[in-house]
This record gives sequence, C-alpha cells and structure tokens, in this order.
Amino acid sequence: MTIRFALLGAGRIGKVHAKAITSNPDAALVAVADAMPAAAEAIAKQYGCAVKTIEQILAASDVDAVVICTPTDTHADLIEKFAKAGKAIFCEKPIDLSVKRVKACLDVVAETKATLMVGFNRRFDPHFMAVRAAIDEGRIGIVEMVTIISRDPGPPPVDYIKRSGGIFRDMTIHDFDMARFLLGEEIDSVSAQASVLVDKAIGEAGDFDSVSVMLATATGKHATISNSRRATYGYDQRIEAHGSEGVVSAENQRAVSIEVAGANGYTRPPLLDFFMTRYTEAYANEIAAFIDAIGGKRPASPDGKDGLIALALADAALKSATEHRVVKVSEITG
Amino acid sequence: MTIRFALLGAGRIGKVHAKAITSNPDAALVAVADAMPAAAEAIAKQYGCAVKTIEQILAASDVDAVVICTPTDTHADLIEKFAKAGKAIFCEKPIDLSVKRVKACLDVVAETKATLMVGFNRRFDPHFMAVRAAIDEGRIGIVEMVTIISRDPGPPPVDYIKRSGGIFRDMTIHDFDMARFLLGEEIDSVSAQASVLVDKAIGEAGDFDSVSVMLATATGKHATISNSRRATYGYDQRIEAHGSEGVVSAENQRAVSIEVAGANGYTRPPLLDFFMTRYTEAYANEIAAFIDAIGGKRPASPDGKDGLIALALADAALKSATEHRVVKVSEITG
Amino acid sequence: MTIRFALLGAGRIGKVHAKAITSNPDAALVAVADAMPAAAEAIAKQYGCAVKTIEQILAASDVDAVVICTPTDTHADLIEKFAKAGKAIFCEKPIDLSVKRVKACLDVVAETKATLMVGFNRRFDPHFMAVRAAIDEGRIGIVEMVTIISRDPGPPPVDYIKRSGGIFRDMTIHDFDMARFLLGEEIDSVSAQASVLVDKAIGEAGDFDSVSVMLATATGKHATISNSRRATYGYDQRIEAHGSEGVVSAENQRAVSIEVAGANGYTRPPLLDFFMTRYTEAYANEIAAFIDAIGGKRPASPDGKDGLIALALADAALKSATEHRVVKVSEITG
Amino acid sequence: MTIRFALLGAGRIGKVHAKAITSNPDAALVAVADAMPAAAEAIAKQYGCAVKTIEQILAASDVDAVVICTPTDTHADLIEKFAKAGKAIFCEKPIDLSVKRVKACLDVVAETKATLMVGFNRRFDPHFMAVRAAIDEGRIGIVEMVTIISRDPGPPPVDYIKRSGGIFRDMTIHDFDMARFLLGEEIDSVSAQASVLVDKAIGEAGDFDSVSVMLATATGKHATISNSRRATYGYDQRIEAHGSEGVVSAENQRAVSIEVAGANGYTRPPLLDFFMTRYTEAYANEIAAFIDAIGGKRPASPDGKDGLIALALADAALKSATEHRVVKVSEITG
Repeated sequence: MTIRFALLGAGRIGKVHAKAITSNPDAALVAVADAMPAAAEAIAKQYGCAVKTIEQILAASDVDAVVICTPTDTHADLIEKFAKAGKAIFCEKPIDLSVKRVKACLDVVAETKATLMVGFNRRFDPHFMAVRAAIDEGRIGIVEMVTIISRDPGPPPVDYIKRSGGIFRDMTIHDFDMARFLLGEEIDSVSAQASVLVDKAIGEAGDFDSVSVMLATATGKHATISNSRRATYGYDQRIEAHGSEGVVSAENQRAVSIEVAGANGYTRPPLLDFFMTRYTEAYANEIAAFIDAIGGKRPASPDGKDGLIALALADAALKSATEHRVVKVSEITG
Repeated sequence: MTIRFALLGAGRIGKVHAKAITSNPDAALVAVADAMPAAAEAIAKQYGCAVKTIEQILAASDVDAVVICTPTDTHADLIEKFAKAGKAIFCEKPIDLSVKRVKACLDVVAETKATLMVGFNRRFDPHFMAVRAAIDEGRIGIVEMVTIISRDPGPPPVDYIKRSGGIFRDMTIHDFDMARFLLGEEIDSVSAQASVLVDKAIGEAGDFDSVSVMLATATGKHATISNSRRATYGYDQRIEAHGSEGVVSAENQRAVSIEVAGANGYTRPPLLDFFMTRYTEAYANEIAAFIDAIGGKRPASPDGKDGLIALALADAALKSATEHRVVKVSEITG
Repeated sequence: MTIRFALLGAGRIGKVHAKAITSNPDAALVAVADAMPAAAEAIAKQYGCAVKTIEQILAASDVDAVVICTPTDTHADLIEKFAKAGKAIFCEKPIDLSVKRVKACLDVVAETKATLMVGFNRRFDPHFMAVRAAIDEGRIGIVEMVTIISRDPGPPPVDYIKRSGGIFRDMTIHDFDMARFLLGEEIDSVSAQASVLVDKAIGEAGDFDSVSVMLATATGKHATISNSRRATYGYDQRIEAHGSEGVVSAENQRAVSIEVAGANGYTRPPLLDFFMTRYTEAYANEIAAFIDAIGGKRPASPDGKDGLIALALADAALKSATEHRVVKVSEITG
Repeated sequence: MTIRFALLGAGRIGKVHAKAITSNPDAALVAVADAMPAAAEAIAKQYGCAVKTIEQILAASDVDAVVICTPTDTHADLIEKFAKAGKAIFCEKPIDLSVKRVKACLDVVAETKATLMVGFNRRFDPHFMAVRAAIDEGRIGIVEMVTIISRDPGPPPVDYIKRSGGIFRDMTIHDFDMARFLLGEEIDSVSAQASVLVDKAIGEAGDFDSVSVMLATATGKHATISNSRRATYGYDQRIEAHGSEGVVSAENQRAVSIEVAGANGYTRPPLLDFFMTRYTEAYANEIAAFIDAIGGKRPASPDGKDGLIALALADAALKSATEHRVVKVSEITG
C-alpha cells in the first residue's frame, strides 16, 4: 500500500522531507502547501505533485498523512486540525515553544487517536542507531554516562534566532532527545551554562550561541552536552555512551574518506557541512518508520510525549542557565 | 532531456544498473531483456518497464541507450549491433576475453561513431575521485608509485570462475584500470605472481585466487596490486598514490562508523560486504557520466580503448604469472 | 650541574619519580626515606642511594631538592620544613585536603622564597603539551569550550578512597588543573553531579565513583569533565579544546598500534593500563622542568597557587554535588 | 651479570647503540673505537667509557661483547677477528656486500662457535612484534600475502649511496628480512623494478631511489615491498599480513597524537622523522635480546644466516631489476 503524503511547508527542511518521501517506494507525495506560493510550486514542479491550501489538504480524500514543516508557531494548531481530520501526522520539532500548549495539543491527539510522530531525525541515523543497537546487545553493559558534542557549522540568521525559541529549544533539543534515547531513563535534573562567544548579535537577540548542559537521572546516570553555533570544520555530531562493560561511540562523517599527507602532516577533509547532507539517510529512515507506524507495523516513535519531554528539558536548561542553579525537570512539567 | 534506457541482462550487476538508472532524474528505464524471462520480469515489475527481446530493443525508436550486463561472450556482438543501430552503449567490463576480438569490435564502434563507455565503476567512486582530484590539484606533486589492495570478501562459484576468463581478466582488470587512472601514464611492462591459496577448486578450474602484480611505465613509475578472492573482514578496497610532494590514500568503507571498546580492545565493524553496497554511489555517478557523454557534455570515459588496455594488461599478467617472466605490454597489443 | 635529589615516600608514585630522576642526566638520587623501611630499601638498592630519615635529609648538605610522595596529610608539614631548610621542593598533588592549610603552607613558601612545584604531571605529557602548543600558535583561534574525559581503569582500594579526600580532590583535581591549563582563564563557577555507579563500597566510604563537572569562566568560556573510576578498555585520557577557528584534541594512547581484522570487525588493543605507563614521558618531562626551575631557567610551574586553585575547584565541585547547586569558586577561596 | 660492551664505530648508528647499551641495566659500555678520534671521544665523554683501538679491544679481558657499527667493508673482517677472540658479536647489517664473503665469514663464526647477532632492528619494534605475535596466536589464520611500505624521509648523501651497495642492499634489505619474519617461509623467487625518480645524482652514482619488489615462496605465498628514498611526510614504515582468517597491520608512528581541525580539514602531525626516533624502543629491545643470547636465555636471532639470506634477496632483486626478469634465489645462493 502506498501512503499518500501532503507536505506542509516548502522551506529548507520541507525540501529534505520531500526528497525522503519521493524516494520511498511505499510513499507518494500528492500535495504541497506553503504560505509562499513560489516555494510550494518549486516542490510541486520537481516532484510532480499539486499545490494546495491547508484547507484543501484537510479536506482531501487522497491524503493519508501530512508532514508539518511550517513555522513552529503553527505546529500545534496544524496537529490538532489534522488529527481531527483523521490524517497521520509527522511534525518537525518542536511541537510548540510552550509546554502548556504542547500538553493541550497532545490531549487532542490522544482524543482523536491520531498517529503522531515527532521529528527527532537523529534517532534514525544509521550510526547512532548502531550505537543504540550495541547498547541493546549488551556490548557495553549498563549505560552510565553519555557524552554528546553537537556543533553547527555556523549560526543561523538572527531573524531565525529570534523566532527559534532560543538555542535550547531549537538546537539542544535534539541532544536532549538523544540523551534520553541513549540513557534509556528519564532526566531528573538539569544544569546548564550559556554564553555568547560566537556572535554578539545573537546575544542582542536574547539568545546564546555556546552552551554546556549536564543532565542527571534519578538513578544517578549522567549526560553532558556541548553545543556551539559555530564549528569551522563542519557539522560536528558525536555521541558516546560509557557503560559498566565498555564504551561505544559514533564518529563524525565526511563526504569522502581520503587523507593527504605532506610536509605539514596528514590531512582529512572537513566534515559534512550540515544536516541536509549529514542526515540524509536519517531522514529517509525516519519517513520509513513513520510509514511503518501508519501501517501499524510499529508504534509511532518518537511521539508527542518525547517531543514534550525534550521541550521541558530545554525549558529547564534555559531556567538553569539564566537563574544559575540546578533545575528539577518537575519544576517545568509540574 | 530524458535518456531512455534499455537494460540488457537482468542479473546481479544488471539490478545495480537498473537502480542507478531509475534513480537518475535525467534517465528512464523503458525496457529490459534477459535470456531468463523471470529475471527480466522481476526488473520490469519493480521499475515499471517493458520486457523485450534484444531484437525488439534494437528496433525500438524509444530507446536511446543500452546498458550491457549480459554474459561476457555476448558483449562484443551486442556492442557492434547496437553501435550500428545508433544507440549509445554502456558495456560492463570486459568487452571480450580476446584482445583481437575487442579490437575488431572497437573498429566497428569507430566506424559507426557510436558512444561507447566501459564499466570501470571505481573511477566514479567519490573517494577514489577525491584521490584523483587531490593529484590533479597538485597536492602530492608528481605521482611516482601507486599501491592498490583489492580483495573480495569471498570467491565466486566455480562455475562463474570457469566462464570469467580468470582472475586477471575478471577481478584484477579493475585494478589495472585504476593503476592507469592514478598513474596518468601507460603501462610498459607487467610482472605477476599467482597462486591458489583460498580454494583448491579454483585451481582445478584453471584459475588462481591470490595474485600480486607489479606494473612499470616507460618513465619508471610503479604500481603494485595485491588481490585475494577472500577477505574475512569484508570488501577490501584501498588505493594509495605516492608522489614527489606527498601521498594520498582512500580508506576502506563501512556501513556504520561506530567503535565499541571493552576489555578486549576497540572494535569497529567489518567493511561493506561487496560491490553492490560499496560502490552504490559509484554506479550512480557512472550512469550520470554516461548520460553526460550522450548529451555531449563530456567525452565517454572510460571508453573502448580503456577497456582494451585493461584487458591487455590482464593478458600480460597471466602470461607473466604462467611463464614466470616480466612481460612487455607490447607483446600483447602488438 | 647535577641536582641531588632525596625522595620522600617510596610507594607507587615514589617509584615513578625515582625512575624519572635516575634517568635524567642532570639529576642524581642520593637518598630515600619512607616510614616502611623495606620500601625505602628497595629503591635504595635499585638505584644505589642511601636510606635516610626525614630529619637526616633535612640536615643533609648533599641534598638540593626533595620529591614529596608521602601520604597527603604530611605534604604541607614537609613542604614547610624543607622550605625552611632551603631545599627545592617538588610535591605530589594535593598539597593538603584543606584550602586553609594550603594557604598557610604557601605563606611559608613565600616567606622562604623556596622553589615549589606541584605534581600535575599531565601538563608535561607530550600530547597534551602539543595541544597547548597548537592553541598558543593560534591554530584554533580563541579557546571557547574544553572537553575532558578522564576515566581510571578501575577503582583504588576502599582504604585508599577513605584517605583520598574523595574523587574530586584525588582524581578530578588533575582535570581541574588541565581545564585551567587549556582555557587560559580562571574558573568562576562550578556545577557538579556525583554518583556511585561502579562500586557500592565506594559510596559506603562516603565517596563517589562517577562524576560530571561543568566549569565556567567570568568571560563565559566552558569546560566539561567526565570521570569514572572504571573503564574496562584501559586508562581513558582525552582532552579537546574548541575555539573560534577550530578544534584540537589529543587521542588516547596504546602500547602498540596494531589492528587485527576478521569476520567480527577491526580490533585495536585496549589503552595503556594506567598512569605509570601512560604518563612515563610526562613524569620525565616534569622532573626535567623542576630541574630547570631550580636552575632558574624557567619559573616553577605549576606552582603552589596552581595546587591551591585546583583544590578549591575540587571543594567547590564537592559542595555543588552535595548541595545540588551551582557554586561560585569565591565561596571556597573567600 | 653485567655484559661489558665495546662499541666499534661511533657514527650515527653507533650513537644509537651506545644509548641502548647504557640504558640497559644488564650492560655496561666500557670502550669505544673509531677511525676518527673525535667521534670516539664524544661517545667516551658522554658515557664515561675508554677510547681504545680495535686491537686493544680484541685483547681486552674486560670486554665481553662488541657492537660493530663501522663501515660495511670492515664488518666481515671484524666479525672473524672478534669471533676468534671469543667475544660475542652484534653486527649491523649487512655483514658484507658479497654473498661469497659473508659465507666465508659465517664459516669462521661456526668454527669458533661465536655468538653472532645481526642488526635487523625492526624485528624488535614493539608494533611489529605485536603483528608477529598476532600471527603466532592464530588471529589471522595462515599468512598468505605480506605488504610492506617503507620509505625514508629523504635520500642520504650521494657519497653514502656510492659506498652503500645500492638501495636493495642498504634499504630494502630490512624489508626482505621483515618479509621472511612475517611470512615464516623462505623466499623462492624475486621480481623487482627500480627507477630513479627522486634525485638524478643517485642514478648517476649507479643506484636507484624508487623500487618495487615482489617475493614468492615455494608454497605460493607473496610479499610486495614498496620503497622510496623520499617521503615528505616522515619516515613511512607500514607492514601488513593478510591471512586465511583476517589481516593484521601496524600503523605509522608520530611523536604526538593530536589532531587539529579547521576550515581546511583535520590535520595530524607528520610521522617520526627517521630510524633514530622511530625505532628507539626497537634498538633497546634488540640489545636486550643480544644480552639474553649471550646469557644463553635464547638463541641469537636474527643470526648470520638471516643476514646472508637478506643479502642474497637483495642481490636477486638487483639482478631482477637490471636484467628485467624474475630471479630464483637459488641463482644467488647456489
């Protein structure tokens, strides 16, 4: 059976999902909507689908599932509408910048029994999946300490920063989810440091560009996260899980694995430049998992609750960084 | 403009090309032929193309190009027929097991001015292309010595071995082409050693499974090739070019880049298992290059002459190994 | 000129220093003292020096310098005595477990103008020195975030744990010093998490075995430290400094750099087993630096103040971990 | 028991051995001889030994063993003299440039039952020993193909070249020995290519600077060797053994294991610069093995026969390269 998709939002991440959908043998892209007609038309032309309005897609009988890539402040409303319309929903993170709003949204999802999956793409990266598999196979014993280093190649435009909800909700949120994915336990407390070291304009916009976070679970397991909005050598994405029997890590990825040596040493190329190239396979796997969830082959995961918790961790981290204290997650989730 | 392809031969390598063609935005697979109807039908069903006979494809006005993946002893005849029919031709290596037959075939290609490209897929591997690019950029100065280590994960069936023309024409032929690709000069003499170390049945079939080859150019540059039909740790494909200013090498490839450490050490997964996985991108790039050649954007390369020379080097190596002497390539090419 | 050394304390670390001293062309080991005569005699026999009492060494005219490797609670007293006796002093970390006591001790050192160097051996590791040199050469721009992963192969005996002052003062203290060494700025606040995950007996002794620490400077630079008392794969010692222009890191070290590949993957040996093997060169360089300091060729560094600050950071971390709050270093140093 | 050494020859390699001897707890350097008094005196002063003539050392009752580091054309005579004088002999490779002369010399050694060890230092490198150990432990099954890449950082002076016996006898000789060490079988035939690519002056001196060699054993096992007199990135010393169950390799060595990443990629330092730094541990282990052989704890190995065979392989390679044919080793050894 082919799942018929509509794409909501034809921006950068929308294009990534359009490619993943159209490359999947069990999926078809039938419609695309965007507030900017030119963006929607570009996708429509490239993949041979129709340009429609949100309302038309809501009413369309030939749409089984939607992929929400619109601006964050529209996510929760769209999820609710499409849940009520009986469509399966894949929503890019975050569901909303407000924990309260996310909770209300998830209530609607629960009532409608809609299939909702949230876009934490890194869970579907083959390398990170292999790390998780190594843990599941018992190769490192019990996971004790997780280390995540995650650095963007360069900062986004300040306009984006202003709408993003801040670095914790926009960037670190992926690492919060990854920490939970690897630890296999819920986070109990958060301690964060945040600075502006890359670009003063980011600070003037009320955000940070360099953050460190420590997470602890109730049983005393730890995770540390290091984020920067700038890495001259590419998109730095490393994870490591240390356990009672060993350690497992995933290395960074490059486009080509060559090494050139000369009088100045041995040089390998910089890393892949950003998420579109680094996580190509992850996005394809993610859509495949969503299709499986629609088909009942496996639960939709990560789901709305995962999205909620990652957001709560981001809120806790922001609170910790600004109030200079350790914050219990329960302060946020109530 | 979309190039309309017919696939001749629906076996293992035919499937690889079918995937490459159908993934290319500038190509369409319109027909497939195979002596075994079931094989052709499987491809036809998967990609929605027609099953046709060779004769039908020769006559078809909606076929611009053919990809020849049939048994080796049919290659030269098919190239001649399709050259005369005005189709662009991509042919898997080798063109034929006889240098004389290849020459005759290339004469027909020359007369008809047909576009002919020969399937040395490794030239299109991103990692090996990056090695070549590093050389072109002058990063290692003048290339002096090339080292190629190329080992299959396991031997093919003895039936295949018997029809293959032997390890030099079937397996090392890729390395001969790679040596020329990296040296940028023609080979003058060949010295080869060949043994049966992996499987006696291979020896009983008149072939070898473990070979070493040294090549020299007229200007005194060298290449060494090491081949085995068995590598327990995966498909071992390494190249290195040493030059006056440095060295450049391409590392082996794995499916996932993780490392697990414990009391017994640090372990990374085995290599990709064989050419279908190792050279996925190479096959896609190769078809794209063929399409560019059809469109006149670049010359068809590697071409028939490259196929001829690689075969001649294989013949020279076989002669060297069996006669225990250094063989001049001119002894073969006349 | 040959510097004549006396070794105070002939235990595990004493032996390491005895070897470093006797391997140095500018040093001679003339005496050794230990509360356990057998230990002192073993060193005396191996290196041909005299067994003496502390009092004899204090009075000896043929002793220029002492290396203090006795139990921690004797360090400050010995430093004061030998400072007054006009000897140059190298003291293993920590100077004392009490910040107040260290301060008093350093006052005596200042009054006597004694040469005092404190044993943070890792500053003298060639790999870590090369990291520092890369920073000094401007290769990564301005240092912004430091990551230190430091794991012992296995926990020490619980008896040792009880006398050690706890993991922060015994183990993390090295990482505190390394963070300062790499950041090039003083630490302003400390946030730490501490758990017992390796061995319950360590918890029963009032200590932790798994800790994470975040440090921040006044200008907003960060360091994260991850410690465990157990790593099945050897002595895990990694540092990384991320800066405005790039990143520099030092890899782990093994006794031999071989890799064995087979059907289960590619395996490298475990890491060096502990500090005696991992930091052999560091200890030799450290003694050489001390000799240079005695000779006036460079300042004694790291010095008493470095020892004091690292201890204060340990105290701050302990306070943070037990009070579950961010601690300002000024709370400790007053 | 302390073995009392005399050093014959105080040049570059003599200094390496002087350091190894004086660092060994079971050895003492009592005398040094050199045709150039200043060279001998420098060693004598540094290590506190006597300057003597060869004749004085032959007659000295306080000399148990000699280390011969004089020019090659004196080796055989000195071995014979000291064998007759009842001294244990360590001789740098090669014993002589003439197979016939070496044979005659070894006859004298056999008659006198002298202990003779030949300086193939690489057998004692910890990394290469670990490769051999992995083979002995059966980790790669039966060894089938050995690959050796060995490149000097830069060519020696042409004056040295002229006296050296040529690249095969001077440089490749180490690789011939290593091939035997790893294959565990005798070489049956040799095929070599030799060019002048680095420096014309080397060619004018009648030698080559870039050579490739293939070796085969009677059972069909192979080894390939690639040599260059110039590698811009340091002293390139790699070995690999491929077997029925896997592959084992030793990586190149650097002084420090750091990596610096920036916009132009990830860079590690060049390799160690030459044998004095790369094989420091090997030289120490070699002298220790010689001392063990003197003490009867293990046979002297590699011995005179190993030296003879490596020289014969060098002669065979030269014959192959100049006559452009495969050469049987029996043509040389008779």
